[in-house]
Amino acid sequence: MRIALLGGTGDIGEGLALRWAFHSDHEVIVGSRDPDRARAKADEYETELSSRGRDVTVNGFVNEMAADRADVVVLSVPPAHVTDTIASVADGLDAGTILVSPAVAIERDDEGFHYDPPPAGSVTAEAAWAAPDGVPVVGAFHNLAADRLANLDVELAADTLLVGDDRDAKGTVRLLAEAIEGVRALDAGGVANAPEVESLTPLLINIARFNRGMYDVVVEFT
Amino acid sequence: MRIALLGGTGDIGEGLALRWAFHSDHEVIVGSRDPDRARAKADEYETELSSRGRDVTVNGFVNEMAADRADVVVLSVPPAHVTDTIASVADGLDAGTILVSPAVAIERDDEGFHYDPPPAGSVTAEAAWAAPDGVPVVGAFHNLAADRLANLDVELAADTLLVGDDRDAKGTVRLLAEAIEGVRALDAGGVANAPEVESLTPLLINIARFNRGMYDVVVEFT
Repeated sequence: MRIALLGGTGDIGEGLALRWAFHSDHEVIVGSRDPDRARAKADEYETELSSRGRDVTVNGFVNEMAADRADVVVLSVPPAHVTDTIASVADGLDAGTILVSPAVAIERDDEGFHYDPPPAGSVTAEAAWAAPDGVPVVGAFHNLAADRLANLDVELAADTLLVGDDRDAKGTVRLLAEAIEGVRALDAGGVANAPEVESLTPLLINIARFNRGMYDVVVEFT
Repeated sequence: MRIALLGGTGDIGEGLALRWAFHSDHEVIVGSRDPDRARAKADEYETELSSRGRDVTVNGFVNEMAADRADVVVLSVPPAHVTDTIASVADGLDAGTILVSPAVAIERDDEGFHYDPPPAGSVTAEAAWAAPDGVPVVGAFHNLAADRLANLDVELAADTLLVGDDRDAKGTVRLLAEAIEGVRALDAGGVANAPEVESLTPLLINIARFNRGMYDVVVEFT
């Protein structure tokens, strides 16, 4: 499959791009608002992968072109940019395209990090609301520590949780998630259950903050 | 230490009572609004423990007496009864007593289970508000599957998360938690961080519902 990572130049997008290109034969496309930056990052990922003996092509395009070419579009942008990003690529999406929402809205106070969902109830629900008719949205990859994901030297051994109302789309994202070595995907139900999934992320950051040696903490359900 | 489990006749209270009595030398006291029920359950636990070669005394008392005798009082009652229960035992609590809040307020809709915190922001915060001055409250044991906890044949291998504003009290609850074989306690910060901890519970129930073989799911942070 062709996977476009919009906002694929940093944070969770970088890790997903590297992992899919390294562990699977899916074609990875890096998207950015700035096409030069997308291409530069795509080249950087190719070099990193090549240094590990994995010679694959990673292309970089402006978000609109990246989304237009992809079967699966990952919205790895900050939560405040999710609806804008969907609007900007909507013309390139068709009913065969799956949108994936990994973003989480978090606020911070003196005590720690807290879940701060948008009025839709969750970022996943907001993405589902903003998506063109017939384009399914699946929430996934919220809880994979970005630095651990991007470091191919580190074993992941992490579960990720899927939420979505389209069973087929969720099945496709499950296969993509489990194409990454060390990732297991679990079903957490429909989009209405996204708040419980997304609020795991500030919890993980709090755990990382208050416990020694847990900077890159991930979660396993056993 | 003497640990009173108010509402220790069912659900999470039963599991904690059995595990502490089985794995540690702490004295377990079962509390209930009905003293006969408390005594009957305490006898039942003694019989269960004895059948496993562990001959210990478990006493059962009405909640007020159970709390009065204890160093640590676990509010293993439904969330709607937390403040009433604290009020009913307040006379027996002193500044040396630690209150432990494991309850989570959950609502259910067609899609699944959702976190439904009280106006205080979390059940732990509500307990902290209701506690007499100088009596510390620690949130803990929210995410240990009750049936798995109560089944001494099953290995736990679970993390539990602590929230509280009193460092010493949190340290004591950490020791109590880790006195149970297979439990690791992690610090999730102050009471203000309780919503992120408590909302893990409906997520676990959703995961149990939507994934085969995960009925008794617990969590490990790695």
